[in-house]
Amino acid sequence: MKKYQIGNRSTFTKTISESDVYIFAGITGDFNPLHIDKVASEKSIFKERIAHGILVSGLISTVIGMQMPGPGTIYMEQNIRFLKPVKIGDTVTAVVEISEIINDAKSIIKLSTDVYNQKDEKVISGYAIVKVKEEVGINE
Amino acid sequence: MKKYQIGNRSTFTKTISESDVYIFAGITGDFNPLHIDKVASEKSIFKERIAHGILVSGLISTVIGMQMPGPGTIYMEQNIRFLKPVKIGDTVTAVVEISEIINDAKSIIKLSTDVYNQKDEKVISGYAIVKVKEEVGINE
Amino acid sequence: MKKYQIGNRSTFTKTISESDVYIFAGITGDFNPLHIDKVASEKSIFKERIAHGILVSGLISTVIGMQMPGPGTIYMEQNIRFLKPVKIGDTVTAVVEISEIINDAKSIIKLSTDVYNQKDEKVISGYAIVKVKEEVGINE
Amino acid sequence: MKKYQIGNRSTFTKTISESDVYIFAGITGDFNPLHIDKVASEKSIFKERIAHGILVSGLISTVIGMQMPGPGTIYMEQNIRFLKPVKIGDTVTAVVEISEIINDAKSIIKLSTDVYNQKDEKVISGYAIVKVKEEVGINE
Repeated sequence: MKKYQIGNRSTFTKTISESDVYIFAGITGDFNPLHIDKVASEKSIFKERIAHGILVSGLISTVIGMQMPGPGTIYMEQNIRFLKPVKIGDTVTAVVEISEIINDAKSIIKLSTDVYNQKDEKVISGYAIVKVKEEVGINE
Repeated sequence: MKKYQIGNRSTFTKTISESDVYIFAGITGDFNPLHIDKVASEKSIFKERIAHGILVSGLISTVIGMQMPGPGTIYMEQNIRFLKPVKIGDTVTAVVEISEIINDAKSIIKLSTDVYNQKDEKVISGYAIVKVKEEVGINE
Repeated sequence: MKKYQIGNRSTFTKTISESDVYIFAGITGDFNPLHIDKVASEKSIFKERIAHGILVSGLISTVIGMQMPGPGTIYMEQNIRFLKPVKIGDTVTAVVEISEIINDAKSIIKLSTDVYNQKDEKVISGYAIVKVKEEVGINE
Repeated sequence: MKKYQIGNRSTFTKTISESDVYIFAGITGDFNPLHIDKVASEKSIFKERIAHGILVSGLISTVIGMQMPGPGTIYMEQNIRFLKPVKIGDTVTAVVEISEIINDAKSIIKLSTDVYNQKDEKVISGYAIVKVKEEVGINE
């Protein structure tokens, strides 16, 4: 039986906290005032502090690496379009779906990778290309 | 004078520590054994624990948000191809360069966004599309 | 041209979050109830949890090490007077200014190092003495 | 009975880990390459990554706030001279001693605040001025 089929779908949801944003700034060095300066961000077009786009994208990687295709998957490419800001306190859901079998022999597939907020607005759209682990792999 | 010109370039370097990888796992939920399970990762093709690709990509966002174009930039799109694994202890440098003026009137530009390790091997290649803050902005 | 001149000035701003205070407690061991015990701190003269003074002083070091004089600077001395408490959620700005050339031949200078909150109240006043990196240095 | 006497002494010891340094960079924004870039720091006069001076000073605050004079103490001033670098993996001991009663009526005292490494080399010397909590206070 095939491990993957077009249309297979998996999701992961998290409320993005202030500490998530601060810690992500802390490990990457991205202290852009939009993320960590309340006073400056209130004067920006966003009106408050927003999460780093790459932090939110990390939830896509969580679905891919943990759930579908899951452990052992090789991440080859990720495309991300940032459609709307994610504010501190927003609850976002990464939705990953298999959209194309690129090379069945090599188990290379394409995934649509979108993220929605609690109002069901799409905040990120994108796709990933991954190589699915076959017979021999880690963690099994 | 123009705020941006093709060929403008900026970099950011960081040694990726075990704590970076563990903390990133902690805020995203990506506990893929490749990143946080020493025993399993030693049996994988990587032979040891590797950093999350998205964590390494975060350094690109640091250059864009902090240095060039800098605070106030709107991140529209990021494409990332993962070429080689980054291991715990690797020192990586994100290199961002302005490669194209997409829409001068709207200040939309394209950046090449690559990451190299301490052996000068390219570990990530990609591009970003951003809107540069114009006259009125945050943090000024 | 001189690398430093009396009056040169640089700043760094950050909103101090609860997670900053908790993480700082975690790495230093300073679990003084004023910082991490909501109930006890409400009975104190501060009426709520306040940030560690040394954590706030860290933003001075950020300006010195990252911006002015920047990477390669040798930190010789720091004097800090704590004038007012910084509460969780306050947005503070470290302001560093070159105030004196102590020894031009050895590139030793004195900096005024003050921190203000979002109401423009001075919360820390102090000075630093540093040795500026000369010709050969790190990170170049 | 007096709560404080000249010569009273208290200490706190911690091994400074890589994660301490990375997390401190993360909450302050001080990503000076001396602290987080292995390759650059090896070319510096220190030959390896060193801890932030202010992070090490934080251990002084731990003694003052937790042990002697302890919870409720108001931190008025801290002077720090950085004598030697602290490297990742060094075990440092903050030593606080009451050196002077500045104003007995107001309970304002002076403390000598030094830090030593595992070779008993003094890495920080300095002093603090604090107001000791009197009758009514927090956490008692």
